[in-house]
Amino acid sequence: MKNKIKTIAFDADDTLWSNEPYFQEAEKQFCRLLEDYLPQHSVSQELFKTEMKNLHLYGYGVKGFVLCMIETASRISNATIPVKLIDEIVSIGHELLQKPIELLSGVSETLDKLKGNYRLIVATKGDLLDQERKLKNSGLEGYFHHIEIMSDKKVSDYQKLLKHLDCKPENFLMLGNSIKSDMLPVLELGGYAAHIPYHVTWAHEQHEPVLKHENFMELKSIADILSYL
Amino acid sequence: MKNKIKTIAFDADDTLWSNEPYFQEAEKQFCRLLEDYLPQHSVSQELFKTEMKNLHLYGYGVKGFVLCMIETASRISNATIPVKLIDEIVSIGHELLQKPIELLSGVSETLDKLKGNYRLIVATKGDLLDQERKLKNSGLEGYFHHIEIMSDKKVSDYQKLLKHLDCKPENFLMLGNSIKSDMLPVLELGGYAAHIPYHVTWAHEQHEPVLKHENFMELKSIADILSYL
Repeated sequence: MKNKIKTIAFDADDTLWSNEPYFQEAEKQFCRLLEDYLPQHSVSQELFKTEMKNLHLYGYGVKGFVLCMIETASRISNATIPVKLIDEIVSIGHELLQKPIELLSGVSETLDKLKGNYRLIVATKGDLLDQERKLKNSGLEGYFHHIEIMSDKKVSDYQKLLKHLDCKPENFLMLGNSIKSDMLPVLELGGYAAHIPYHVTWAHEQHEPVLKHENFMELKSIADILSYL
Repeated sequence: MKNKIKTIAFDADDTLWSNEPYFQEAEKQFCRLLEDYLPQHSVSQELFKTEMKNLHLYGYGVKGFVLCMIETASRISNATIPVKLIDEIVSIGHELLQKPIELLSGVSETLDKLKGNYRLIVATKGDLLDQERKLKNSGLEGYFHHIEIMSDKKVSDYQKLLKHLDCKPENFLMLGNSIKSDMLPVLELGGYAAHIPYHVTWAHEQHEPVLKHENFMELKSIADILSYL
């Protein structure tokens, strides 16, 4: 692998910076708002149902998440919830869209060492404007040759990305925290994939295989990739 | 210009297919829902205020539009609106995200004649997933080398696009229906810009200069560009 890799792609949320804890905190606030109607864990289950139902329409990101919270709140309350609570849900979204960016440990140092030797890109899902905002506020923009904001991370999406980058799979390495979105499709195409676990994962991204593949690496932290390159 | 143009970029909404009429119809439905609280034209003004206030957070596209309708409905009604009406607003959004694609006149024929001779791309604003859905449903995907979904269309956004395409401004022609978003920034960079007016324009995009510039072309329909190339 050492001499093959030319392009290294990084997932962004929970790989370069924290994201899921903010969503989970927002969801907790939402569940508390609705606890007069349903126990908090059931609110959370209902929200997840709504998110899965609407995923094909909304895609990933904060705006779809807020719309799903609103739809769930109305359904759970049989359309009796006071509109003041809808306002609070809208505010939860505004807050999520303005969260500070906290880089994860080792990110800047690792990018520093890789820059110049590889073409570095970001490959992430989510709302376009929001992901651009996060990248800008992260201070990492200068490290990356290209930012790809993807509507999904299936095999066909990576195929398009590779075509667009004019990059062969065997010259491509993806780093990320999701086995399902960052590892499996890249391995299927013949690329390399390095997993950096993050302490919380959205239910939709959860996947627990013991992954054995010659192109797969399990890392403890982002800096560990340096020993493979 | 004839021999200089190598890359031709097309705006999508209201240039390749109809879009704004769907948004205007959605807005009319919204204004009717709220006419017990405020005359329809005032509801429309309030909605526009909310959209401008939130543009830096939500960007362009259907999801942000729906969130702005919800916020406006609550504000106008002093948080007294029944949640059933919020449900109706969410449904308006779901409908907008599933509208059929109607190509504008001359689009396929023009793309047919240009294909092979130029690198054709789409450069559009809006929600990532929604714009991809529209392109897919349009049947036009095969004509385009690249689809750029932009969070905004300012000078700096076009600069990034040109860098990414490895294209000089003098080799770039942009076609679109918005003077403000599709013409002025491209002309400022030294590119070519051809305006195809559409019969309805969102207030935010309205701009009425008599535009005189040696790199600017005013077309009656998309097919007119062929006589310049």
